[in-house]
Amino acid sequence: MASLRKCLAVCILNAGKRNFSSSSLRLSTESPVGFIGLGNMGGHMARNLLKKGYPVVVCDVNKEAVAELKNDGASVASSPAEVASGVNRLVTMLPATQHVEEVYTGKNGIFGTVKSGTLMIDSSTIDAAASQQLAAEAEKLGSVLMDAPVSGGVIAARDAGLTFMVGGPEASFDTAKALLDNMGKNVIHCGSSGNGLAAKICNNMLLAISMIGVSETMNLGMRMGLDAKLLAKILNMSTGRCWSSELYNPVPGVVEGVPSGNDYKGGFGTALMVKDLGLAQNAAIATTSATPLGSHAHNIYRLMTNKGLGLKDFSSAFLYLQDEGQK
Amino acid sequence: MASLRKCLAVCILNAGKRNFSSSSLRLSTESPVGFIGLGNMGGHMARNLLKKGYPVVVCDVNKEAVAELKNDGASVASSPAEVASGVNRLVTMLPATQHVEEVYTGKNGIFGTVKSGTLMIDSSTIDAAASQQLAAEAEKLGSVLMDAPVSGGVIAARDAGLTFMVGGPEASFDTAKALLDNMGKNVIHCGSSGNGLAAKICNNMLLAISMIGVSETMNLGMRMGLDAKLLAKILNMSTGRCWSSELYNPVPGVVEGVPSGNDYKGGFGTALMVKDLGLAQNAAIATTSATPLGSHAHNIYRLMTNKGLGLKDFSSAFLYLQDEGQK
Repeated sequence: MASLRKCLAVCILNAGKRNFSSSSLRLSTESPVGFIGLGNMGGHMARNLLKKGYPVVVCDVNKEAVAELKNDGASVASSPAEVASGVNRLVTMLPATQHVEEVYTGKNGIFGTVKSGTLMIDSSTIDAAASQQLAAEAEKLGSVLMDAPVSGGVIAARDAGLTFMVGGPEASFDTAKALLDNMGKNVIHCGSSGNGLAAKICNNMLLAISMIGVSETMNLGMRMGLDAKLLAKILNMSTGRCWSSELYNPVPGVVEGVPSGNDYKGGFGTALMVKDLGLAQNAAIATTSATPLGSHAHNIYRLMTNKGLGLKDFSSAFLYLQDEGQK
Repeated sequence: MASLRKCLAVCILNAGKRNFSSSSLRLSTESPVGFIGLGNMGGHMARNLLKKGYPVVVCDVNKEAVAELKNDGASVASSPAEVASGVNRLVTMLPATQHVEEVYTGKNGIFGTVKSGTLMIDSSTIDAAASQQLAAEAEKLGSVLMDAPVSGGVIAARDAGLTFMVGGPEASFDTAKALLDNMGKNVIHCGSSGNGLAAKICNNMLLAISMIGVSETMNLGMRMGLDAKLLAKILNMSTGRCWSSELYNPVPGVVEGVPSGNDYKGGFGTALMVKDLGLAQNAAIATTSATPLGSHAHNIYRLMTNKGLGLKDFSSAFLYLQDEGQK
């Protein structure tokens, strides 16, 4: 409770310093929220909770990230177990399945200290089956773990513009939504445990396929003599239209302000797409579903990573396909 | 000239009978337009020219189709050569490359009688290189052949709602547009000869990829436990959004009034998609372009045809993928 009081004190202090809105008054009524995982996404998300006046207890292996959040008003815990011991709601935002399993079930993990009745929300994009297993363990401890992966990227995380796809018991959804509303603009209940992840990886599989489809279509049309902007215009008024052709075109100069116009920097890295397509393939294997183009796309993004495009935006599929054609 | 006078007389007669609009007055000023190829698409297109008051001279190997158009007011010619001898503008709408080559260059073909200065518009979807070759031959004859394939299908053809993608000399575009405006709502100049076809096959390749992508994504999500309508809603507000997910969803019951809800009847047949993807692959080979998913999609639609889905709408990709998964 000492750390909690300290947290509250720091929050109030910082709220004053940083000119936070009147929602800071929530401090007097809201109980603290745990937040574990302060990376590119999680750091912004935890900060948005602070901005909305929530007392937040944070934890991360990265000391710099922790120091930044502390400076913004967060209280600091030394382990996931310590976070869980002081809150009745917490959010985790971690890179991959093994990190989530470690944070929940490892030594000094959440499940060692979590209080009955706690709502845990995992916003990591991980294997749906692994998430369902963790949710089942949480249930045995008298608490609830919901999967709530996001779409929208770092900018949306910063601007509280994320979309949360939530899987887990209907009875806990309103409580989860009240918290997630502070970090996103759309919070959608997708059904039971694992369904949030199912929606997320399905969307990203389709996105992955569409982006390669647009890349090879634009490349083919340009090689046939079509002007790139004209071709994009025709696609976007026709049946080939998709998000990747219209708002995130992979050909430099067709759409302003997207990674293709900035040497494919920023955006959503090819290596992350490889990870999400791996999760989609795991799910396809588990459900014996045919995903011919999803599997093919997974292979293409892996080849792109091999060719040094892993840290470039995934729309660099256009670069890759250009190079695959004869010069 | 006898047949032309007869044509005019018949047109005027039928215009009166059929209560055509005041644009029938155009009869007195417009010279006749040739129309060769009165299939599912061409029949409607020729009829729309008649409705707008153009005298039309038709020709087709199908006698029933010719009789219908004659009944609607068209004049009838016995061969493409006879059509070409009496007009300075003509439209062709034929199934495939070999038919177009026969109609233009064969015995009794257009090129045998075409008058210098004639504008020929081929709305067939054929090989872009073959079309460019025909356009070059037309130029030697002192006339112009533009490629102007359509998107929109039979309903759009009936309702004069087609989109025309036009390739050919800028100087002839306005004349072409004035005619095509009577049969479509969008007429887009895509550049030089072959570029209309390039735009068309590029769009259809992307559409083909997207439809399989949506089909396998919906199938995977549903097998993971997601409600189909909810999944479609999430995709359509996210980065996976495309025409196939939003307006033509392949899962029965998700979107009203599309072929998936009617046992995949009507719409755009899988066999026609196979044809268009073949043209895209020819173009990819000719331009040494990498089209990994376009090639894979071509293969999948061919397998679908082998399994009896050739005459079903191409969104039956969903049926096919369902069957490919374990029951």
